[in-house]
Amino acid sequence: MQPQLPPTEAIQNLPTLLSESWFEYPVRAQPHHTDYAGVVWHGTYVAWMEEARMECLRSIGVSFVDLVALGCELPVVELSIRYHRPVQMGMAAIVKTRMTQSEGVRIVWDYQIQSPDAQELYITAQVTLVAIDREKGKIMRQLPSAVKDALARLAGGGDRG
Amino acid sequence: MQPQLPPTEAIQNLPTLLSESWFEYPVRAQPHHTDYAGVVWHGTYVAWMEEARMECLRSIGVSFVDLVALGCELPVVELSIRYHRPVQMGMAAIVKTRMTQSEGVRIVWDYQIQSPDAQELYITAQVTLVAIDREKGKIMRQLPSAVKDALARLAGGGDRG
Amino acid sequence: MQPQLPPTEAIQNLPTLLSESWFEYPVRAQPHHTDYAGVVWHGTYVAWMEEARMECLRSIGVSFVDLVALGCELPVVELSIRYHRPVQMGMAAIVKTRMTQSEGVRIVWDYQIQSPDAQELYITAQVTLVAIDREKGKIMRQLPSAVKDALARLAGGGDRG
Amino acid sequence: MQPQLPPTEAIQNLPTLLSESWFEYPVRAQPHHTDYAGVVWHGTYVAWMEEARMECLRSIGVSFVDLVALGCELPVVELSIRYHRPVQMGMAAIVKTRMTQSEGVRIVWDYQIQSPDAQELYITAQVTLVAIDREKGKIMRQLPSAVKDALARLAGGGDRG
Repeated sequence: MQPQLPPTEAIQNLPTLLSESWFEYPVRAQPHHTDYAGVVWHGTYVAWMEEARMECLRSIGVSFVDLVALGCELPVVELSIRYHRPVQMGMAAIVKTRMTQSEGVRIVWDYQIQSPDAQELYITAQVTLVAIDREKGKIMRQLPSAVKDALARLAGGGDRG
Repeated sequence: MQPQLPPTEAIQNLPTLLSESWFEYPVRAQPHHTDYAGVVWHGTYVAWMEEARMECLRSIGVSFVDLVALGCELPVVELSIRYHRPVQMGMAAIVKTRMTQSEGVRIVWDYQIQSPDAQELYITAQVTLVAIDREKGKIMRQLPSAVKDALARLAGGGDRG
Repeated sequence: MQPQLPPTEAIQNLPTLLSESWFEYPVRAQPHHTDYAGVVWHGTYVAWMEEARMECLRSIGVSFVDLVALGCELPVVELSIRYHRPVQMGMAAIVKTRMTQSEGVRIVWDYQIQSPDAQELYITAQVTLVAIDREKGKIMRQLPSAVKDALARLAGGGDRG
Repeated sequence: MQPQLPPTEAIQNLPTLLSESWFEYPVRAQPHHTDYAGVVWHGTYVAWMEEARMECLRSIGVSFVDLVALGCELPVVELSIRYHRPVQMGMAAIVKTRMTQSEGVRIVWDYQIQSPDAQELYITAQVTLVAIDREKGKIMRQLPSAVKDALARLAGGGDRG
């Protein structure tokens, strides 16, 4: 009944899309983001990356809530983070993200979190999502067309201002 | 469609139940619970109190998941916390809870968070839940019988070891 | 060594300041803010309220990080929340806050969380902070002048646009 | 002033330690761990893994708080997670961890999160820590002897019951 992890080979090949431009999502390290060391707790970045991903999708017209309402889930199946420097309490940072790859129903997002002046690199990361048909509890054979179209627009770039 | 806040007068009077004995739930302040000040962040206690409430219910045979499956939600409608002293990073503490009052479909829980040796009082708090019929999106007229029976057992006390 | 809870009577009377205008902080319910019920988890609002408070202080020129660097902590000593309706997954909301009262070193903040069109009220809440001298581990006798001045500006209102 | 990411080559070779036995840390999916999909939110596992790591160290006599007091920080520098199946709301799970490798001041922890009956595998993950001298803001040349000794004991295995 529970969805199985997707096979590593893509079920259906969508032409690989590459978005060269980054979507930028500003954040600030508030007390609840920090830990005893006075810097952002290492798990907080996972929340920031999710927010950036949602807002990137929203910026190209994809409402995550609508997808869910249509029965399409996009759970994270892989996550990797490299921590270069910690964001200090009170500091602003920019979460940069772009979709680097989409094979079939797998969507790969790249991340860089850096200082607003781009002089400091805090985090590099990668997150992989997969499209699940909630009713069947199975990996979808292909992305919903709303997502596919939006990703194509995203790959086209340029029109995000 | 969204549930309204319950009227302050109870819809149906369940004889007021008072549990004199406390349920005790042990916790430890891990790095992710703390903030830049080296102590537990003030919002973390809300999570600890929820855990203690769930485990108290479980100890008297009430599965929160089963309730939800039956269409009964128990959202928090009121919360108040008084912070006496902070729990320091790495320290153990005991979350003590008991149901102090149940009027109709409102259930009130009292909390004390203290040091394992009971010499330090960290937090006193109160949380009020109300039973919602998820399908109708309305306050229930009475608690589901599984809950009512369990609360009566809890009020009876003694049998929780 | 640990700070004691402040006495209820104020140590020193600062003329009571009342800010009539609200500071508004926009938020959006992302997946990590929600719980199994599809709505924002009841503890998430505590984080949103902290963010709004920090940004309100920043808007009047008070840097929380600078205060901490000066040895002044502003821990939460009381918190109360009334939950009227839950914010649904994916929805935007406005966290409104204003300082309603400051007696000596206690600062009281009022909150309303509502829909962007102000038609739905989700949360009303109140948070009390107290100024602690970190080195002495004691309640301060008076607020640091940077805070007092800023609060006076805030009470003056009008100039926050 | 901020610590740099450690060089990939170890500064000093500590004989590679391999702990064959797993440390087991039980958890339960409470409402605050879940998201709108009714399962544990993908970032929650990062907190659970931290808790398991702290408790594993404690079980071999290493107090994280003491390390910090001695000026040794052990920040996470790399994290990777593979999500096989989600833990459902209300379910119990076991976080299994062991130190698989320690080169110089880098400590690598392996993770498996599974059902209590070991029939379901939810998560596999790896977390890398590095020892930082807080005062100098630099990678340590070697692990503090308290850590080295404890890791040797851990590598010796057997004595953890």
